[in-house]
Amino acid sequence: MIGIFDSGVGGMTVARAVETLLPEYQIIYYGDLARTPYGSKSSEAIIQYSIDNTEFLLGHGARVIIIACNSAASVASDILRQKFDVPIFEVITPAVERAVASSVTGNIGIIGTRATIRSGIYEQKIKQQEPGFRVFSEACPMLVPLVEEGWIDTRETKMILRKYLTPLKQKQIDALVLGCTHYPLLKDSIQHCMGKNRTRLVDSSIEVALTLQKYLDENPVVAETLQHGNVNKYFVSDMTQAAVAIAEKIFGRHIALEKV
Amino acid sequence: MIGIFDSGVGGMTVARAVETLLPEYQIIYYGDLARTPYGSKSSEAIIQYSIDNTEFLLGHGARVIIIACNSAASVASDILRQKFDVPIFEVITPAVERAVASSVTGNIGIIGTRATIRSGIYEQKIKQQEPGFRVFSEACPMLVPLVEEGWIDTRETKMILRKYLTPLKQKQIDALVLGCTHYPLLKDSIQHCMGKNRTRLVDSSIEVALTLQKYLDENPVVAETLQHGNVNKYFVSDMTQAAVAIAEKIFGRHIALEKV
Repeated sequence: MIGIFDSGVGGMTVARAVETLLPEYQIIYYGDLARTPYGSKSSEAIIQYSIDNTEFLLGHGARVIIIACNSAASVASDILRQKFDVPIFEVITPAVERAVASSVTGNIGIIGTRATIRSGIYEQKIKQQEPGFRVFSEACPMLVPLVEEGWIDTRETKMILRKYLTPLKQKQIDALVLGCTHYPLLKDSIQHCMGKNRTRLVDSSIEVALTLQKYLDENPVVAETLQHGNVNKYFVSDMTQAAVAIAEKIFGRHIALEKV
Repeated sequence: MIGIFDSGVGGMTVARAVETLLPEYQIIYYGDLARTPYGSKSSEAIIQYSIDNTEFLLGHGARVIIIACNSAASVASDILRQKFDVPIFEVITPAVERAVASSVTGNIGIIGTRATIRSGIYEQKIKQQEPGFRVFSEACPMLVPLVEEGWIDTRETKMILRKYLTPLKQKQIDALVLGCTHYPLLKDSIQHCMGKNRTRLVDSSIEVALTLQKYLDENPVVAETLQHGNVNKYFVSDMTQAAVAIAEKIFGRHIALEKV
């Protein structure tokens, strides 16, 4: 199975993109709602949680892992790759590739949680590919609670987005990476705030699904280890009504979450 | 020692009130930053975490426990009292007593996290004391992230407060319980929004400290089991810069947090 983990249900944007692009494979999802959010926690804590989550997915039959949480991908990818002997994908590298490929001015913006921005991982990966590019980052810790509150399109959300995005807008960026799996839910408001034809938004959930699709095309041996069928499983470590509501909003249909 | 636990550092408002009123006793504080926040988690998860936290404090010499987290107090107080053989105080009962005593109109407002409001505990306790009183509750899940972001006095915070508080204002409440330990940090903005002479704010951190003071006066045998000295200890299950900053804001001085 394709194993996907996130700190909560935001990573279901990744599950949904994988389901859309690779409907023939079975997905197993793990959302660590009992310890969510990761973005405000220490790197040490996030690494430990990521190891726990990966062990859970492998124990339940995953043969490929996607780290669908930017905070976890920022600080734990290398450690997970050293520790576990399966292909491990994460939401950062594919988003960086898309941003670099689509920027003309060489000015790229990144928004994410405190943990993601603090890690400096996007800047580092962009500079590895294009040393001359300029990267402007902004931690936006209020956006996850806003999405979880269901305030997708409210006046308050627009005002907070303006506060976070104005400094990036002034830097004339032409690509903006949505560096948190919750942010695609705010895509319309973010696009509106940045100007429609001025800035391309990079949605890492779509990019990582495209990367996995390409990988499986090129590695049929790995693809063969994955189970077929559309009985995807969604596990969570805690169950709340808010989480059920966000899952429904992401998929546009009811999703049966199972508490473990 | 006086043991105090909270989901994070917000409960330090309680520790500070205890330190001010009872400077002769030693405090041991435990902030469960590794699993914070509690307010958006299920009751089941919060109960388990509360048991863990109490065991930690008792294991480190606490002889009296204060549940400084409203979400935990709402769902776990009775279970902790059954399970542990020490006096257990919590932030809800003293706040209810103060609110009931100070309301003239009999219209009382409660603000808190989703978990606290969902529990209905304030309404239940107020009605036990004054069956004719009317209780109006509002879950305010954005306020904790706003405080943790340090947005105490921003335009965005005022706007969100207005959104949450307007329905309560329309109910002509004359007492408003700040049902979350983070909220005293927003006291000025909340008071301004509710009207200065119209609504009395009830700060549960002060009320629980007063209740403990009275209890120790009346129970010298328990008071004697508590250690004297001013070497208070502040333990956290995860360490972040944001937490250190909030702790400093609450105490007005540097607080040495120790990670366990």
